[in-house]
Amino acid sequence: MDKSLHDHPSTPRTKDEKQALMNRLKRVEGQVRGIQKMVDEDRYCVDILIQISAIQAALKNVGFTITERHIKHCVSDAIQSGEGNETIEELMSVMKQFSK
Amino acid sequence: MDKSLHDHPSTPRTKDEKQALMNRLKRVEGQVRGIQKMVDEDRYCVDILIQISAIQAALKNVGFTITERHIKHCVSDAIQSGEGNETIEELMSVMKQFSK
Amino acid sequence: MDKSLHDHPSTPRTKDEKQALMNRLKRVEGQVRGIQKMVDEDRYCVDILIQISAIQAALKNVGFTITERHIKHCVSDAIQSGEGNETIEELMSVMKQFSK
Amino acid sequence: MDKSLHDHPSTPRTKDEKQALMNRLKRVEGQVRGIQKMVDEDRYCVDILIQISAIQAALKNVGFTITERHIKHCVSDAIQSGEGNETIEELMSVMKQFSK
Repeated sequence: MDKSLHDHPSTPRTKDEKQALMNRLKRVEGQVRGIQKMVDEDRYCVDILIQISAIQAALKNVGFTITERHIKHCVSDAIQSGEGNETIEELMSVMKQFSK
Repeated sequence: MDKSLHDHPSTPRTKDEKQALMNRLKRVEGQVRGIQKMVDEDRYCVDILIQISAIQAALKNVGFTITERHIKHCVSDAIQSGEGNETIEELMSVMKQFSK
Repeated sequence: MDKSLHDHPSTPRTKDEKQALMNRLKRVEGQVRGIQKMVDEDRYCVDILIQISAIQAALKNVGFTITERHIKHCVSDAIQSGEGNETIEELMSVMKQFSK
Repeated sequence: MDKSLHDHPSTPRTKDEKQALMNRLKRVEGQVRGIQKMVDEDRYCVDILIQISAIQAALKNVGFTITERHIKHCVSDAIQSGEGNETIEELMSVMKQFSK
């Protein structure tokens, strides 16, 4: 998929939704910096791997939150305007990429 | 696993190894900030999801690099001192966590 | 999730859809038996692991096919009757289970 | 990787190890046939997806069992004969395939 179907969600994210996502992404950013520090201190491989897998889990959850809202708004709106198929195929494509 | 077996790799990471990891983690940090910007600009869900999956892939590759080195040094050294089992079980435990 | 929302898809699978799924599942069954044979012949661990990962890939693709049809029919129909939310939450729940 | 390094594990699997793997693979085979029956009965997509994800989990666990034994025997033996690197790279390659 070269170009996504839209530039913005069909319903804009509320201030609260943005803030909640931002908080989680700030925490992820802090975790990534934490790993940089661990590398700098030459910390044990397994401890670094555990931290990486914590970030993976956090990002996966952010992804699920975004996906659920996407289906509840963008995909639902497209289905209700009778233009669901293209949007559903776009969703499947990103889900496949995620599952790699 | 409450406490890892060691505090440091059995062979310290070289300056080049640290630098290579650091470069990749700096790039990941930049990608995470990129997603924060996308949230701030209320960008399309699918575009954000694609970026998240790019970070997941980058982190997975960092994880593989660390795992490979871990096996080539820490695990190999433990095996050669006849103390492989505990180290291998620790490795399996972190691999299972990673695969979730 | 204790009990799913429905017993059948909102639109029954066609004979062709069933046959296509069945063919793929028969192939998976054959692959599983192939692995049993490999175990019986005490084949090399890595060769068995490669075959297991081929089955995982095949099952994942069957899962995606079923998910896409589920969204195009069951989820879409629920959304059009104004009952999308429960169905979307059920979908998210199974997607999370899949991603483990 | 076109051709694996060996045809058999460096230490043959015991009768008990084979039997334990075989039991788990027989159960997986039964689960795959169970899904065929669900398709035949046109069962609800989500119920089928839950069963597929149960098979994925079972196969992943079989994979971990085989991987752990592989490291404890084949990889350990190679390391002790000073030929660890090639075996470790083969292991990493199959781990990457698994994580897709």
